[in-house]
Amino acid sequence: MSKIRIGILGYGNLGKGVEYAIKPNSDMELVAVFTRRSPESLSILTKTAEVKSISEAADYKGKIDVMILCGGSATDLPEQGPEYAAMFNTIDSFDTHAKIPEYFKAVDKSAKENGKTAIISVGWDPGMFSINRLYGNAILSEGKDYTFWGKGVSQGHSDAIRRVEGVLDGKQYTIPVESAIEQVRSGSNPELTTRQKHLRECFVVAKDGADKAKIEETIKNMPNYFSDYDTTVHFISKEELDKNHSGIPHGGFVLRSGVTGENTKQLIEYSLKLGSNPEFTASVLIAYARAAYRFSKEGATGAKSVFDVPPAYLSSKTNEEILASLL
Amino acid sequence: MSKIRIGILGYGNLGKGVEYAIKPNSDMELVAVFTRRSPESLSILTKTAEVKSISEAADYKGKIDVMILCGGSATDLPEQGPEYAAMFNTIDSFDTHAKIPEYFKAVDKSAKENGKTAIISVGWDPGMFSINRLYGNAILSEGKDYTFWGKGVSQGHSDAIRRVEGVLDGKQYTIPVESAIEQVRSGSNPELTTRQKHLRECFVVAKDGADKAKIEETIKNMPNYFSDYDTTVHFISKEELDKNHSGIPHGGFVLRSGVTGENTKQLIEYSLKLGSNPEFTASVLIAYARAAYRFSKEGATGAKSVFDVPPAYLSSKTNEEILASLL
Repeated sequence: MSKIRIGILGYGNLGKGVEYAIKPNSDMELVAVFTRRSPESLSILTKTAEVKSISEAADYKGKIDVMILCGGSATDLPEQGPEYAAMFNTIDSFDTHAKIPEYFKAVDKSAKENGKTAIISVGWDPGMFSINRLYGNAILSEGKDYTFWGKGVSQGHSDAIRRVEGVLDGKQYTIPVESAIEQVRSGSNPELTTRQKHLRECFVVAKDGADKAKIEETIKNMPNYFSDYDTTVHFISKEELDKNHSGIPHGGFVLRSGVTGENTKQLIEYSLKLGSNPEFTASVLIAYARAAYRFSKEGATGAKSVFDVPPAYLSSKTNEEILASLL
Repeated sequence: MSKIRIGILGYGNLGKGVEYAIKPNSDMELVAVFTRRSPESLSILTKTAEVKSISEAADYKGKIDVMILCGGSATDLPEQGPEYAAMFNTIDSFDTHAKIPEYFKAVDKSAKENGKTAIISVGWDPGMFSINRLYGNAILSEGKDYTFWGKGVSQGHSDAIRRVEGVLDGKQYTIPVESAIEQVRSGSNPELTTRQKHLRECFVVAKDGADKAKIEETIKNMPNYFSDYDTTVHFISKEELDKNHSGIPHGGFVLRSGVTGENTKQLIEYSLKLGSNPEFTASVLIAYARAAYRFSKEGATGAKSVFDVPPAYLSSKTNEEILASLL
């Protein structure tokens, strides 16, 4: 059986994660990595794959079954999504929740016009968390949803810290409030404010001679990012930051608390504890690449979300195998 | 918009649960309940629905969009599954894991020949647990699966207790071993024996003058049911059993513990805490009834499992709504 030929567009943390994620899947092979950097400067793990300039991607039409778009949601994907869905079946992790409907439409148009399948907003949130919100809502139609994030590193909040005057480096952890999760698990259906759901913990390296009190106050009062949360700030050395806070762990919880019958309590809980956020996201992307390939073989075209994909399409096993071993 | 017309075949705990589960779903209506008992003897909650003898079910061809088969897996469904899939789109909760492939084939043949859609083995295990095993396997292709059941009542084991000489009544709880779950959550990928994963706790009402020591020994040494587990037996009064053990709670955990990249640990956990096992199962059946209806409208025929159903098909919301609100 011929393998699913994968391309990776963008070789940051996510792109590297995708390369790793392909390895244990014997039904796939990496054909090429496309980069904005000079291809010679890039060393990848897969000796059989090429490294090419992003400007050469179009030459790989017909040589790549699924292109995994590993760019960011702010500026890369709004352009790349529609552009590459015109040439390849694509998978992306577009995660600007508010702009998903608009993005879906743009990618859908391009993919349909060119006979391609594009699965958008794949990963864990949006992605696996979304699916669990949907299953929870559909099954327990009388109920309430809760999503908690963490414990994990928020890149956006870490960036915000690093922009504060006097800060050399920093990392922010989003931490779900355990007692709030316990309240939800109890079935009491609490109304929880932003402050009651998550804490924010910052590890900050101050520049020599910087005013630490002022840095702490600036961080804690930063609107949107920190002012609505109980935030703690720890000042540590650059060495300690590099040693203890270089990972990108994340995770979280999706809960659906509902009732059936004569007020019988029912609880569905899904949680992730991720040693590496980008590596896990990459593993989800690769599973959905298999689905895109299958849709494409069936002649399907246009954009899809994780909601449109039958679970079976993610598996490398046959329907007979999964019926016998997983059902 | 016309409502999805539902029929219920069999009015035990599951059938009653289905009737409850229809209520909060405004896109559905219950048309009729079919029973083996005398219809006059049955009082149902839905005043607008009929109660009919099972022998009259065939007269409802074309008047019911989806028939929910609420019989048991041992003797009812092996016959009813293929029989009713010839007349209606059907949903069932066939749960004899080892016989699923054979059952699927029989229902598939009948449904295909008659242009119907039948979704088999719907519920939580098989069902939601199966889906989570599949997602976990597809995403973390290097990893290990764990399923724990409970805390909950096992009907089969409770029945086994009640068959022991000298026993008037009894109830069995399957209890997952918390320390074993914690081992799995730690990412250590333990090999766990049957005895290490679950405890069995029995509440037994002995007949007057019965030999309690002998009852306890008989239960603890019962092959298949108890001999491979650490089992505790409590003797209680009939009043206490009725007061404290009349519910049918259940639940459990599906975990996928895996690695990505250079041995980065990743953990996916799905769990259910169910106040009522049959009412929750019924709620899952109703969500999949919506999917069967949609498949049928599209002209799909044959048997399907939960693996074949796109999550979106379970929702009463439009694709635009779920993209905007749940993704």
